[in-house]
Amino acid sequence: MGEAGGKIGLMKRKKIVVVGGGTGTFVTLTGLRQYPVDLTAIITMMDSGGSTGRLRDQLGVLPPGDLRQALVALSDSQQIWRDLFVYRFESGDLREHNFGNIFLSALEKMTGSIEEAIDLASFILNVRGEVVPVTFDRCELCVELVDGFVIEGVSHIDEPREMTERPKIKRAFLNPSASPNPRALGQIEPADLIVVGPGDLYTSIIPNLLVKGVSEAIRKSPAKKIFVMNLMTKYGQTTNYTASEHIEDLEKYLGAGVLDTVLINHRRPSQKILDWYLESHEVVVEDNLTDETGVEVLRADLLSEVVVEKSKADKTRRSLIRHDSQKLARSLLANL
Amino acid sequence: MGEAGGKIGLMKRKKIVVVGGGTGTFVTLTGLRQYPVDLTAIITMMDSGGSTGRLRDQLGVLPPGDLRQALVALSDSQQIWRDLFVYRFESGDLREHNFGNIFLSALEKMTGSIEEAIDLASFILNVRGEVVPVTFDRCELCVELVDGFVIEGVSHIDEPREMTERPKIKRAFLNPSASPNPRALGQIEPADLIVVGPGDLYTSIIPNLLVKGVSEAIRKSPAKKIFVMNLMTKYGQTTNYTASEHIEDLEKYLGAGVLDTVLINHRRPSQKILDWYLESHEVVVEDNLTDETGVEVLRADLLSEVVVEKSKADKTRRSLIRHDSQKLARSLLANL
Repeated sequence: MGEAGGKIGLMKRKKIVVVGGGTGTFVTLTGLRQYPVDLTAIITMMDSGGSTGRLRDQLGVLPPGDLRQALVALSDSQQIWRDLFVYRFESGDLREHNFGNIFLSALEKMTGSIEEAIDLASFILNVRGEVVPVTFDRCELCVELVDGFVIEGVSHIDEPREMTERPKIKRAFLNPSASPNPRALGQIEPADLIVVGPGDLYTSIIPNLLVKGVSEAIRKSPAKKIFVMNLMTKYGQTTNYTASEHIEDLEKYLGAGVLDTVLINHRRPSQKILDWYLESHEVVVEDNLTDETGVEVLRADLLSEVVVEKSKADKTRRSLIRHDSQKLARSLLANL
Repeated sequence: MGEAGGKIGLMKRKKIVVVGGGTGTFVTLTGLRQYPVDLTAIITMMDSGGSTGRLRDQLGVLPPGDLRQALVALSDSQQIWRDLFVYRFESGDLREHNFGNIFLSALEKMTGSIEEAIDLASFILNVRGEVVPVTFDRCELCVELVDGFVIEGVSHIDEPREMTERPKIKRAFLNPSASPNPRALGQIEPADLIVVGPGDLYTSIIPNLLVKGVSEAIRKSPAKKIFVMNLMTKYGQTTNYTASEHIEDLEKYLGAGVLDTVLINHRRPSQKILDWYLESHEVVVEDNLTDETGVEVLRADLLSEVVVEKSKADKTRRSLIRHDSQKLARSLLANL
């Protein structure tokens, strides 16, 4: 190691906390993992759909899916272990179940502790950073629509079955309410940068902010707070939402004026991709942000060139386009 | 390291090959693992029952259960990993499935190779020695009874449903026939000691000997060959068999005069245990071996003090008493 190496070694690593869950957080963590930063993922624990929901309901474990995605994103292991943790069975009793979910569930059943399960998965996956469940309480995400109708459970919120348009969401809450994992609060407080999103606003981002004390901890933290705007609207959650409507809803839970910066993609996806989304009543999030929005707005090309293909056994509808993990990481790190 | 340590370091380790599968082989390997020997387990690949059989049939993988037991027996890892690999789910889609079986199956599906799956499991479990599938061919064990009736599949042979006594087994064969894993033959050839059994004679031991070339390799090997006699008869396989009848059937497949030594327990289990077995028409294997049997007979107290309890989710009928792994290992090593 030369002199420069020595100097880098003496510098305190910057601490970045990513708040979310799902594929948006996966992309963010995948990008940031490759830089010399101290990285923590605070992960929503309210998923109730697919393999995760079935394991939760059948075994009485906490929902493993969002944790597993974050663990794989932070993994610096041989590819085979990463592949194993995302492997999904295609037939028989195990059909649609994901190996990583099964791994976390078995260890939680054995040890009675999801934290211990995460530790052991982190060892196999050689995880760089830390994956922290936002709560250990069992609860369901609920949303009340403007017509007063209440939908309970992420799986029902996430996959609207109705053909008619669902009324706008008025408010979200947890049932029952949930106490924070003290480790989550403890990681937010000393952060240099807090990254919220990208991710489904109501099913991946806001659930974290509904856990007691989390929003307050973010507000009190001296960290710079960045919201990464979603690429596309999400039918049933943010139908036809503009960028400012995303921020408006987020601020209901995070508090007005808490965000320092919004990072938004300015590159348009191909018309073919847009047509696919339109069939699901989803469109590009319109960038209507102005100086009056009250936050710094950073615009960049953040779009991945890769169109996502998913496993045959994966029945969950997932996004076709994603943020590019490298472009996103570079844009985020410019704020440190 | 002192002088003695240095000398030990220069000595070539003795090579022991254990042939079998199931809990008998688990006990043998568990005992031998703790000694400085070069240990190989050649494992039957014909199980078709329980979690193993369902994974085999539903996913098209090779049966993982016997391999998993041998891997755990040879594991020198933290207890938690060993516990994980034998963990059995108790409810839901995964009910009765064993984590270790799921692990091996996922990796075999991903890589297309059970050997690679064994390598990765061996890494996590810090396996001392080597677990070698006797064949990679898919086949069923069949037995023809003396009345000409043929039973196909270990699960059907293993768990007789009939209330009337099943006629004696005339012969066993594989359908279709199976080619050996070259690695299995390669390990038998240079062995110093080959241990056959203990284990269910027809469902754990003989299937190995039915794979082409395996019996011949054992016959040709200069190794000392020991058969560890079962403690109890097995209803439907070796109903009311004496010790000499076990040897007689084994020699049909291994060849007459191939065994050098039979190791047999001389300590009687408690009457309570014997009564439990009697309900299943099973009795202590009567030691009727004499000088005329043509093999060296070694008698020892080999009985474990521990009565086995099994997981609620484990629907397979398993033996209540076992060989003691330490006593068995010491008796075996005295033959090196």
